Amino acid sequence: MAKGLLLVLSGPSGVGKGTVCQHLLKMRPDLVISVSLTTRHPRPGEVDGCDYYFTTPEHFRKLIHEEAFLEWAKVHGEYYGTLKETTLEQLERGRDVLLEIDVQGALQVRRQVPDTVMIFMVPPSWEALVERICCRGTESEEQIRRRLAEAEKEIALYTEYDYLIVNDRLEETAGLINAVITAEKCRVKRGAAPPCWEAN
Amino acid sequence: MAKGLLLVLSGPSGVGKGTVCQHLLKMRPDLVISVSLTTRHPRPGEVDGCDYYFTTPEHFRKLIHEEAFLEWAKVHGEYYGTLKETTLEQLERGRDVLLEIDVQGALQVRRQVPDTVMIFMVPPSWEALVERICCRGTESEEQIRRRLAEAEKEIALYTEYDYLIVNDRLEETAGLINAVITAEKCRVKRGAAPPCWEAN
Repeated sequence: MAKGLLLVLSGPSGVGKGTVCQHLLKMRPDLVISVSLTTRHPRPGEVDGCDYYFTTPEHFRKLIHEEAFLEWAKVHGEYYGTLKETTLEQLERGRDVLLEIDVQGALQVRRQVPDTVMIFMVPPSWEALVERICCRGTESEEQIRRRLAEAEKEIALYTEYDYLIVNDRLEETAGLINAVITAEKCRVKRGAAPPCWEAN
Repeated sequence: MAKGLLLVLSGPSGVGKGTVCQHLLKMRPDLVISVSLTTRHPRPGEVDGCDYYFTTPEHFRKLIHEEAFLEWAKVHGEYYGTLKETTLEQLERGRDVLLEIDVQGALQVRRQVPDTVMIFMVPPSWEALVERICCRGTESEEQIRRRLAEAEKEIALYTEYDYLIVNDRLEETAGLINAVITAEKCRVKRGAAPPCWEAN
């Protein structure tokens, strides 16, 4: 059986990665959206094993020491990471796995799995991103300013990625990522071969 | 404006390239299917400028001398070729152009236009190809044997291509090529960039 694809989806906070992933899952119910491990406390409504796997800093550091992560980062004092073994097992079983992670994490993943398909999502315009971040209404002006500065830095790194997707309309955006997955599965470099040849 | 994509579609005779292209045109009416120049005589029903551009051997050889071709070949004593200028002009105008040509022609094209998207189409099984070639009922046993031997040699060269497409069901096959085109247009290597960045 063919190995699954490892996909990384990055993009500035507020660009709509989560919502696009939900649409993508309707098109590809077999796709595995990877669940990260974190030391931060669950927010109201978050479910362990669904939104994140929640754990202690001690356990997380032990796993770092054991090189158990495909990627990990410390953000605002909390650890976040993707477990290597779980991910590689799913790929071996032929499942496509999508990691929704930031640029630093993405670069770590590519170092360990060089044939990772790297997708970067951007808003249709800078104004659209500003609007989306402001619309949340949960953040102070200072926080918004910091988020936008971070977004600008992050977007500048899109050249590290294989594909750039403009998130204009959700359905279309999910369709573009779906097309990328379909196309990548036909790549000769990834081992696509004539079935009549396989049989010989 | 972004330049168009140059696509090459190859595959053994009888695999169904022509029919798939017709389905693809319904999905992408803007796609240009390139019309070759040939010295062979028109068959009944063939239209000059539609199936082929028909010309004389003298004119064809003059064009070879002028390096006017993206690719050309002599098959069973007749010349066939794709004009460079027409093709490159269409690409400059942002049109995607598909060339339905054989492996030798494809390799010539890639030498001149290195970012050509190379797609190879194979039958779902060897038996399916035998059936399709025999079903035509227009060829002798000897001709069929020769065609199959040629097909075997040609299929072995699929590793020169970027994508391998199995032509099982026409609609699906056209959908796969459509996905390849969609995905290639999102490739960062091809110049895909954030729109908000372009504006700055």
